[in-house]
Amino acid sequence: MNADQNQHSDTTTPYRHAPQRTVNAAGITYAYRELGPKGGVPVIFFVHLAGTLDNWDPRIIDPIAQQHHVIAFDNRGVGASTGTVPNTVESMADDAYTFITALGFDTVDIFSFSLGGMIAQALVVKHPDLVRKLILTGTGPAGGQGIDKVAGTTYYDTLRATLTRHDPKEFLFFNRDEIGKRAARAFVERLEERTEDRDAPITVKAFRTQLKAIKRWGRSTPADLSVITHPTFIANGDNDRMVPTALSEDLHRRIAGSKIVIYPNSGHGAIFQHHEFVSTAIEFIDD
Amino acid sequence: MNADQNQHSDTTTPYRHAPQRTVNAAGITYAYRELGPKGGVPVIFFVHLAGTLDNWDPRIIDPIAQQHHVIAFDNRGVGASTGTVPNTVESMADDAYTFITALGFDTVDIFSFSLGGMIAQALVVKHPDLVRKLILTGTGPAGGQGIDKVAGTTYYDTLRATLTRHDPKEFLFFNRDEIGKRAARAFVERLEERTEDRDAPITVKAFRTQLKAIKRWGRSTPADLSVITHPTFIANGDNDRMVPTALSEDLHRRIAGSKIVIYPNSGHGAIFQHHEFVSTAIEFIDD
Repeated sequence: MNADQNQHSDTTTPYRHAPQRTVNAAGITYAYRELGPKGGVPVIFFVHLAGTLDNWDPRIIDPIAQQHHVIAFDNRGVGASTGTVPNTVESMADDAYTFITALGFDTVDIFSFSLGGMIAQALVVKHPDLVRKLILTGTGPAGGQGIDKVAGTTYYDTLRATLTRHDPKEFLFFNRDEIGKRAARAFVERLEERTEDRDAPITVKAFRTQLKAIKRWGRSTPADLSVITHPTFIANGDNDRMVPTALSEDLHRRIAGSKIVIYPNSGHGAIFQHHEFVSTAIEFIDD
Repeated sequence: MNADQNQHSDTTTPYRHAPQRTVNAAGITYAYRELGPKGGVPVIFFVHLAGTLDNWDPRIIDPIAQQHHVIAFDNRGVGASTGTVPNTVESMADDAYTFITALGFDTVDIFSFSLGGMIAQALVVKHPDLVRKLILTGTGPAGGQGIDKVAGTTYYDTLRATLTRHDPKEFLFFNRDEIGKRAARAFVERLEERTEDRDAPITVKAFRTQLKAIKRWGRSTPADLSVITHPTFIANGDNDRMVPTALSEDLHRRIAGSKIVIYPNSGHGAIFQHHEFVSTAIEFIDD
């Protein structure tokens, strides 16, 4: 255990040991993991493109679970959840709604990243009463310029990572300077902390459908974000190659009263590089 | 050291410790490694798509180096060699010719695999006097049906491997049954035996150019292989997804007097799965 890990006391099961559970709803078996004290408003984690339950940084999720009931889930067709990934972000939001209400919640906080943040926006626009507080990281609005290029970037970086024997996320989420490379390695290693009962990987078909849904989101008509009156916290790095940083600023302008932090010298995965972000996120949730 | 490794005595430096050398020719610095006793006809190794000096199976190259001068090289624009990968197999053969003659050889044996086997064919057609014996594994002739699909298969398997945290070669070179999976893991691990002074990886640009050259080779006019009168040994698995097995049989029909072995229950990487192939290859070279 290093100093960083010691920051969380032993009062709660760490994410790497959180048991994998399932709940059935509308013909789908949703896989999820929960941790932290039950009661109060739970924080639901919405994961990124290709991400499964194994893709949450323990340095983000564990500190939040110290005082909050935390739930991460595989949306329909992803990881260990059954069914087929739908071809629009809005349908993914419908599935997320099905999952959340199946667990019996009528009010939740959302912690979202990238594609997860798109789904979270679609969910809150359609079901504003379900959500209390909204955290949108590394994400952008429907119609956001440059989002439709994500497939090309992802395929290129996957190839580059394979040929150099790296994880594609090292290229996609982090700058390739010394600081970024070091942060990338540390992040990828943290995702390996869980060694048993790991999730199923996403399939190529599901991944490709997600990519198409993101592209469609990037090319769709902008939503009226003035309906989002919820306390909203936006974060990104200043050099996001996947969902351009300007789109975080655009979200900030269009969601009244929203708070924003843009980390210097970091990319799409800024919140993982600067995982001290979690303290600010907890303050926001508790405020 | 396991029993398998003990089969090679300690009389020669193993490939994993072979020093990386360079030779300059026609404005290009070619990287190569050599091992085994000098003198006699050297065996030159022609590597596969995306392959560098780090992609030769020690179980193949080390036994041959026991009695033969063995040389593996990075062709122009690949790994540590300078310059740009040309966009045709024929130009790659010209570069191989430049490299071989720069080392002062006027007669060589060739051990080739996949793209390497295409380059070897182009070389022997253009410079029949340079080559004494020819080993063509996992490869096919110009105009060979199905070769042009290699890019799609490669990209698909790269994605699938990345999402499941495998090496793409595990999918591209081996069957996905238990035997194939085990052979794949063992092969990939053998490529890690060299831990120091490893080669530079191929760049995305070089890799893409190789893929285009292979596609062009698959769609080009068949060469007159009756000019290959050299002793030729052809090998493949019975289920090659990259260069269809039927093309090995086609090569065998069209190269008079050629010898062929098709391994059951194996794919493109049959010679690595059945690396006892090396004994037959040595007999062929020594015959």
